[in-house]
Amino acid sequence: MRSDLFEPRIFEPRSARFRERVEKGVAGQAVLRGWGAVLERVVPGEVDFALAFDPGLTQQHGFVHGGIVGAMLDSACGFAALSLMDDDSAVLTVEYKVNFLAPAQGGRFLFGGRVIKPGRTLTLAEGMAQAFPDSAGEGKLIATISCTLMAVRGRDLDG
Amino acid sequence: MRSDLFEPRIFEPRSARFRERVEKGVAGQAVLRGWGAVLERVVPGEVDFALAFDPGLTQQHGFVHGGIVGAMLDSACGFAALSLMDDDSAVLTVEYKVNFLAPAQGGRFLFGGRVIKPGRTLTLAEGMAQAFPDSAGEGKLIATISCTLMAVRGRDLDG
Amino acid sequence: MRSDLFEPRIFEPRSARFRERVEKGVAGQAVLRGWGAVLERVVPGEVDFALAFDPGLTQQHGFVHGGIVGAMLDSACGFAALSLMDDDSAVLTVEYKVNFLAPAQGGRFLFGGRVIKPGRTLTLAEGMAQAFPDSAGEGKLIATISCTLMAVRGRDLDG
Amino acid sequence: MRSDLFEPRIFEPRSARFRERVEKGVAGQAVLRGWGAVLERVVPGEVDFALAFDPGLTQQHGFVHGGIVGAMLDSACGFAALSLMDDDSAVLTVEYKVNFLAPAQGGRFLFGGRVIKPGRTLTLAEGMAQAFPDSAGEGKLIATISCTLMAVRGRDLDG
Repeated sequence: MRSDLFEPRIFEPRSARFRERVEKGVAGQAVLRGWGAVLERVVPGEVDFALAFDPGLTQQHGFVHGGIVGAMLDSACGFAALSLMDDDSAVLTVEYKVNFLAPAQGGRFLFGGRVIKPGRTLTLAEGMAQAFPDSAGEGKLIATISCTLMAVRGRDLDG
Repeated sequence: MRSDLFEPRIFEPRSARFRERVEKGVAGQAVLRGWGAVLERVVPGEVDFALAFDPGLTQQHGFVHGGIVGAMLDSACGFAALSLMDDDSAVLTVEYKVNFLAPAQGGRFLFGGRVIKPGRTLTLAEGMAQAFPDSAGEGKLIATISCTLMAVRGRDLDG
Repeated sequence: MRSDLFEPRIFEPRSARFRERVEKGVAGQAVLRGWGAVLERVVPGEVDFALAFDPGLTQQHGFVHGGIVGAMLDSACGFAALSLMDDDSAVLTVEYKVNFLAPAQGGRFLFGGRVIKPGRTLTLAEGMAQAFPDSAGEGKLIATISCTLMAVRGRDLDG
Repeated sequence: MRSDLFEPRIFEPRSARFRERVEKGVAGQAVLRGWGAVLERVVPGEVDFALAFDPGLTQQHGFVHGGIVGAMLDSACGFAALSLMDDDSAVLTVEYKVNFLAPAQGGRFLFGGRVIKPGRTLTLAEGMAQAFPDSAGEGKLIATISCTLMAVRGRDLDG
């Protein structure tokens, strides 16, 4: 039984425009634009972002700030969840936990989010962040995320 | 017994220069400078940051991005932990969980971190974020954090 | 502004039978009965459990198993959330994070849960666990929890 | 780059007696014995437990208590971490987050833990829980965990 316990899942999107919806959502985020985040990959339930090193993103030791790593992972998970939602749903983050494994040191970073279980109301997603010395080269795992997202339809979060 | 279960604790700093160390750490963070974060309060084991609304910090609905809320809370906890560390220790975040309770909507935001248990290696801190309609007015709780910090002495995180 | 950031809140119960509902829920849990957990305190949004040391609850070092500490904290938070819900709502745990601060060593343990923000669908609660050398004496903080609960009305969790 | 972001890793054990050390640790846990947990699989960095349904493990709706699911997942992660540690290290849980995806309903349950990143001091592990209708049949994902473990050598947790 064990063999498929951690196997990736394949999901059917509920919206034919799932890619367009993710792209539009990303384009609307001033924060992602400001950091130079690039949407690298969108398939149903999976979203990847790339980010180039920039001195404006650093903490006091010259590495990319952990809070930015967390925010990029949250974004990857949020848009992965959105890619499986109805056309009339927006996505809100309920909670996330980030574990940091190594300093965010490198020339380029990749942030991947994938849906573990989509739901009518709540979706669970997980993600991983990797650092690359430059545009090529092998990646190093620097952080993971576990994230609960909520589908909202025409109203604010649980007010 | 219950009455003191959630009571705040009072801590003795190990460094006489705890305030200076926090201020220097904050000043070295390009990210906090770029967001306009202001260090509002430093006492042993407690640090507060204030942040004014800025359109560059928003997500697609015009609220401050949840990832920035998480990053500010992480910073408040990290510097609260640093305020209780030795002069030769730096602080790294091991993990944090953020729970979002309401959209980060308002003119001004406050992020408080307080140490729950300081340790030689690991420190646990918690924090809360509030949104204020403007510079005065009553605050609304928008997010909480629970955060593990690690003291490092002259080396990188557990590599 | 800071002074009230971490202040406890006072809640109005939606059900006049909140105490009875909590007591009935606790009585229905075979696990809590089996461990000898005692419901110590029920006020709107706050629930405390007490547990006496028992060799059957231990891990290999002779301390109470961390998983039991987590389960007790989850229960305290779940019933604290239930105490603020409608008569037709049941409570399910969406997620929780537990941080362990010291071994669960002692003769008696106290687990307190309190609601941070109640909601129509989601509720956030936090809690703390203390160990006491015996029935009297001063407590030591051994663990904290941050927990998201969901109100369900006449159906299973988000299937 | 994306293709290997979520790929399982293969680890070299530091102890030749890694399997024996896990088995001995499991045997020493009164709690696991009491619940009838069975160690199903031990390879370096991966541990699985199986558990049969028992009415003594339930909450008020007749499903296995979420706290027990959390405790089993914590145990799977803890022993997965131990399988990669030195002979003179014991393992303590620093923190874990559990996300619940469906009620723990079924005849048999499987709890898998795998190390994401081993470290000299801190190890990150993740895990998943599945419910099976009976001894055969297809599993359903019911919970996930993300867990930080600490190697301790001849002393208590960070006191």
